[in-house]
Amino acid sequence: MVSSLPEHVTVFEVGPRDGLQNEFETVSTGTKIRFIEQLAKTGLTQIEVTSFVSPKAIPQLADALEVVMRLHATRGVTYSALVPNLKGLERAIESGIQQIAVFTAASETFVQKNIRMDIEGSLRVFKEVIDTAKPHGISVRGYVSTGFVCPYEGEVSKEKVAEISKRLLEMGVYQVSIGDTIGAASPLDVQKTIGHLLAKLPADKIALHFHDTYGTAMANVYAGLQLGISTFDTSAGGLGGCPYAPGASGNLGTEDLIYMLDRMGIHSGVNLEAVFHASEVIAKELHRELPSRQWKRLRSKDPLKS
Amino acid sequence: MVSSLPEHVTVFEVGPRDGLQNEFETVSTGTKIRFIEQLAKTGLTQIEVTSFVSPKAIPQLADALEVVMRLHATRGVTYSALVPNLKGLERAIESGIQQIAVFTAASETFVQKNIRMDIEGSLRVFKEVIDTAKPHGISVRGYVSTGFVCPYEGEVSKEKVAEISKRLLEMGVYQVSIGDTIGAASPLDVQKTIGHLLAKLPADKIALHFHDTYGTAMANVYAGLQLGISTFDTSAGGLGGCPYAPGASGNLGTEDLIYMLDRMGIHSGVNLEAVFHASEVIAKELHRELPSRQWKRLRSKDPLKS
Repeated sequence: MVSSLPEHVTVFEVGPRDGLQNEFETVSTGTKIRFIEQLAKTGLTQIEVTSFVSPKAIPQLADALEVVMRLHATRGVTYSALVPNLKGLERAIESGIQQIAVFTAASETFVQKNIRMDIEGSLRVFKEVIDTAKPHGISVRGYVSTGFVCPYEGEVSKEKVAEISKRLLEMGVYQVSIGDTIGAASPLDVQKTIGHLLAKLPADKIALHFHDTYGTAMANVYAGLQLGISTFDTSAGGLGGCPYAPGASGNLGTEDLIYMLDRMGIHSGVNLEAVFHASEVIAKELHRELPSRQWKRLRSKDPLKS
Repeated sequence: MVSSLPEHVTVFEVGPRDGLQNEFETVSTGTKIRFIEQLAKTGLTQIEVTSFVSPKAIPQLADALEVVMRLHATRGVTYSALVPNLKGLERAIESGIQQIAVFTAASETFVQKNIRMDIEGSLRVFKEVIDTAKPHGISVRGYVSTGFVCPYEGEVSKEKVAEISKRLLEMGVYQVSIGDTIGAASPLDVQKTIGHLLAKLPADKIALHFHDTYGTAMANVYAGLQLGISTFDTSAGGLGGCPYAPGASGNLGTEDLIYMLDRMGIHSGVNLEAVFHASEVIAKELHRELPSRQWKRLRSKDPLKS
């Protein structure tokens, strides 16, 4: 088992987007920029900074264009933003962003309720988005949400996840990120669904995106590592809740993932304490504790240094 | 990998002892009894209810004798209490408890600082405790603390853990519980140390006791399950902090473990929501949120029921 673990993992930071869009309070544009620019100095190479969705749908991210335009480029760091449609893509192109992400799901009901299209419709839109983005030198990532369990339909079939992942890759996304949107998956779900996907796609085309609603996110990461997956989406401080369970935990905390990787001798290039200090920027503005275990620990005395 | 997972897991509840001894506020005796008796109706078969330590050392558990004497027996549930020495054993015998636990560690400095003896001295005391307890029909469990990392010495050798575990078993404990006292272990530590132990002892003699200080507890459980370990110590609500890192997370939450086991089809016989309701008894008296992910989720809307 040990031998199959990857030597290097890419930590894909989604806190400024997935984290902040699920916070009830809106964070000021200046604070977002400070947060992102501090994250860019931690060794992270991928940061999803915002979403070009309708400001009516997600008022927390209404300042998407301003955020991206005011960000300073950092060598070795790729900034990315979610783009739901061609209208969003126009703003994304105007902003000068290097990478975008499109977002669909493996559950028909979830897609319907979230973006008021069926899965087929969402893929048609994304085909246009991808074809329009590429000539601008913008790379595209794809999210497959509800990859394990859907809040409306329950169990999601591994065949559906594989089918949508393959189609997104054929359309030109460079990687699909399979999301456990409501955080209900167990390591056996990861073995089953991602194991099936790996029979059809190479491991470097697959990222995993876990929420910690049910406390299984880190165990799921370990199951993913054992399958050879080497990209994981996390959120600094464990920012963000779950829109389907107010008060529940958000994404797996970036600091927590880095701790485990460091301890296991898996290289990520990201500095744990630097991410903690970036999270502090947001914690201070939100005036609240953040859910990541490391965030809580670093706020107290470090047992390893006592 | 799947085939090696156990079909049944024993959840060893330590919230009333390990949880409450690390809380700053003292919980009233009546509330403790209500908490324990509610836990006894959840399907749990093992509950560590208190510790017969010196009331000066741990004032939170000064009412140990009263707690045990007032508890109603529940069919199928074994109550247990920590016993540090012969003086504690006298009170344990007087209380009528069915099971006790002795507590040493695999790190010399940790044992010195905790119980002001060296490991050899602690084993000599426990030999007397075990020999005196057995004729009273009291079974004995053994804790090996700092099984992976010591807050003072750093890395702990797997050979030391195996040596102390073997000696405790030879002295008559029915099971050793290997603790990640400061919650710093990763799944690879579990593979290394517990893998080594399994070369010398059968799996049913070994329990694992994880704290979630660094966010790795559930991943460590999964690593333990993959090795065939089938007893895990957890705390209802994730009660209790880490005395070496004030503010940090406590034991792995019982509710969180049960969720993952249920989802993986591993039988525990314990009802998740019933444990949550038991945790509520303590949350209300402490007037605070509890760290278990499930506790937070159940306090909000259940996404699977929406």
